[in-house]
Amino acid sequence: SRLVGFEIGRDSTNFAEGIDRDEAYRQVLESAEALMEGQRNWVCNLSNVASLLWYMYQSLDAEVNWAGFYTLDPLDPQQLILGPFQGRTACQTILFSRGVCGAAATTGLTQLVPDVEKFPGHIACDGGTRSEIVVPIMVGDKVVAVLDVDCLKEEGFGQVDREWLEKLGNLLGREGEMWRCGS
Amino acid sequence: SRLVGFEIGRDSTNFAEGIDRDEAYRQVLESAEALMEGQRNWVCNLSNVASLLWYMYQSLDAEVNWAGFYTLDPLDPQQLILGPFQGRTACQTILFSRGVCGAAATTGLTQLVPDVEKFPGHIACDGGTRSEIVVPIMVGDKVVAVLDVDCLKEEGFGQVDREWLEKLGNLLGREGEMWRCGS
Repeated sequence: SRLVGFEIGRDSTNFAEGIDRDEAYRQVLESAEALMEGQRNWVCNLSNVASLLWYMYQSLDAEVNWAGFYTLDPLDPQQLILGPFQGRTACQTILFSRGVCGAAATTGLTQLVPDVEKFPGHIACDGGTRSEIVVPIMVGDKVVAVLDVDCLKEEGFGQVDREWLEKLGNLLGREGEMWRCGS
Repeated sequence: SRLVGFEIGRDSTNFAEGIDRDEAYRQVLESAEALMEGQRNWVCNLSNVASLLWYMYQSLDAEVNWAGFYTLDPLDPQQLILGPFQGRTACQTILFSRGVCGAAATTGLTQLVPDVEKFPGHIACDGGTRSEIVVPIMVGDKVVAVLDVDCLKEEGFGQVDREWLEKLGNLLGREGEMWRCGS
């Protein structure tokens, strides 16, 4: 099924009651794939994907307090800059050497952090955050962005989140030409 | 007061209890001005401004269901493309000839629509929307984007909203060089 233009608005952020995490992520992936099919603008796509994730976590009562993206800063290749997100206002830039997002960008590896207070150099954009997952988005072997989700409780994310968010990251990275403004 | 980097995160979306609309908008303007002082990346700035507005309307119990931006589509000057927002997934593109956003972009004038069902050619990205305000963002005499806010009840916006959102639009348009990716 292809959701474009007007149709993407209403249904894609409604999740069936009692849906489990696995099924909810599957719906997000399908919606993300559909909305990217006819559209290559990265700001447009990341803005809608952040919304898909946000309302998924809300429907799961996951206590997620932030979901969104940081991209490479086109003016400074040593830092990330805030991209589209849902949640409260966030740090504008993050050095590659700092925090969980920086670690994901530097290593190209997913950072699954059950307790952010135990993560060396953690940056508290929001002091309420207790756990976090950050997935790098790669085009070829180059990190172009990270997908960051924060949770108000410890151990908010596990292997199911890692698997699906990495699939989502792969989908976003697959459209390499989409990222021309972000890198 | 200048809010940059880490400090912008926590306080700028907290509004005092019982604050009125006028005071709340003043806080948003001050926060927006502060966060744009050291940062010219339009995606970063619009993402944080959408968040400021969203949590302001939440604190006012304003029943706002969408707050965000459409910019000129760099691939098609006859349409707007979705920018950073808060709320449920939205229409990806809007022709200049269509709806309330299109009217604001075409005329360069704020569209204050107390009842969207009476607006010719209204586009229902979200069928729950009952009223809407759209403020054009101008760089010189050229529209580069529109700021769009939707409400679940009729007559959700009035002169106070118009005045403050136009001030916000002016602030965003003032940084003309910020918009190079959006136009």
